[in-house]
Amino acid sequence: MDHTVEIRVRYSEIDQLGTVYNSRVLEWFEVGRGELLRAMGLPYSDMEARGAHLPLVVAHVDYINRAGYDDRLCVTSSVAREGKARLRFDVQIAHPDGRPVARGYTVHAVTGADGKPIRPPAWLVEAISG
Amino acid sequence: MDHTVEIRVRYSEIDQLGTVYNSRVLEWFEVGRGELLRAMGLPYSDMEARGAHLPLVVAHVDYINRAGYDDRLCVTSSVAREGKARLRFDVQIAHPDGRPVARGYTVHAVTGADGKPIRPPAWLVEAISG
Amino acid sequence: MDHTVEIRVRYSEIDQLGTVYNSRVLEWFEVGRGELLRAMGLPYSDMEARGAHLPLVVAHVDYINRAGYDDRLCVTSSVAREGKARLRFDVQIAHPDGRPVARGYTVHAVTGADGKPIRPPAWLVEAISG
Amino acid sequence: MDHTVEIRVRYSEIDQLGTVYNSRVLEWFEVGRGELLRAMGLPYSDMEARGAHLPLVVAHVDYINRAGYDDRLCVTSSVAREGKARLRFDVQIAHPDGRPVARGYTVHAVTGADGKPIRPPAWLVEAISG
Repeated sequence: MDHTVEIRVRYSEIDQLGTVYNSRVLEWFEVGRGELLRAMGLPYSDMEARGAHLPLVVAHVDYINRAGYDDRLCVTSSVAREGKARLRFDVQIAHPDGRPVARGYTVHAVTGADGKPIRPPAWLVEAISG
Repeated sequence: MDHTVEIRVRYSEIDQLGTVYNSRVLEWFEVGRGELLRAMGLPYSDMEARGAHLPLVVAHVDYINRAGYDDRLCVTSSVAREGKARLRFDVQIAHPDGRPVARGYTVHAVTGADGKPIRPPAWLVEAISG
Repeated sequence: MDHTVEIRVRYSEIDQLGTVYNSRVLEWFEVGRGELLRAMGLPYSDMEARGAHLPLVVAHVDYINRAGYDDRLCVTSSVAREGKARLRFDVQIAHPDGRPVARGYTVHAVTGADGKPIRPPAWLVEAISG
Repeated sequence: MDHTVEIRVRYSEIDQLGTVYNSRVLEWFEVGRGELLRAMGLPYSDMEARGAHLPLVVAHVDYINRAGYDDRLCVTSSVAREGKARLRFDVQIAHPDGRPVARGYTVHAVTGADGKPIRPPAWLVEAISG
């Protein structure tokens, strides 16, 4: 399952070269993950309320083309299991005409609120695999 | 050449699990790069004034242990050429007792202010290779 | 003229008490200003392209109620002239049921790209006063 | 009691006009408050561990002069009680030569971790008034 959400670049996200500051892409990855999980019926706030947190273990970003203030961008995300205990989200960010801005992935552990790993709950595994 | 700078975790950098929000690590990588370049005699603001910019092409972070509000952290950076036209910075972030928080790298193009690639200037190549 | 835009609170915007980190409200004020100006036919990117920038001179925020991750919030903005040379934006941020989260205002100079004050262009004055 | 801490402007804090993005000043106010409280023997992390939180009720900033990437800035803070139940921090940010960048204040409630107001603990009142 792929899910796309549109964002608009904020002035606060642009650096002095007039393009997106690099760390902001990871915040947009988070927006993409959140909307994908909501579309799958698993809003992340519900997941945390049920005691399953998804802290990042790895983040990787390839920066491809510039994006400027007020640009509309499409954030497209998908999710899969990575081994038994982890999830991986793949994300692409592109201009509406398809020109890519960035792509990458994040790998997440499944933990309790204290950051200690837990076995991925059945409802989570079923939603991802389904 | 390795260079270490100490930072202190700001309240604005912590999420609701009480640990560093993931994208902030890339901002600390930037602090590390900046201080390394200054120690090499190449402050990044001077480089930009001389027309050489270093936009990110790749960023990669492995998240290892939590860090909380007000923690002091050591950011240790080094730089090398990657092929003919790029630079790579390797960065480690650790608690003062050596316990790692995150490690990773960024790969940078060398461009003009317009984002178009330029040949790395001789003064830059010499400083990196020297 | 009032204009309302809806935002969703990002995980990156929440602090360790589970509520919005204070500085983020100013980023949302900026989102509100941008959408108001677009609705008035004056997208801010066009204004900057025409040489009129609106740097902040004053910002004031009253924080009223908490807002958590993934909350939908309504950002309602209006604009008026403040004296001959300045603009003032008033902004309210509220939960969809009307419960206020924050309110405040920003005062802006009108400057060139170098930050030096300029006389507000006629097209800007007319749009604000009209 | 006044307390001054020096910061260096990060690339992530600069907007496309080459000056500090407005909301970042509130993050620096927080750095100033934190270092002032530490100098008073009340590190904010200890205060939170003892159950006293200081969420913002009001923030006010006057923006005066530009500050650019890599500038060193001095953040000078002081604190006083405001009525019986609140604290007020006054903050000035200036270039090392004294040229002001911003000044302003924040007003804080004293609450438990749930955001409900509590009576300011005696150890806090004594430290502020002492």
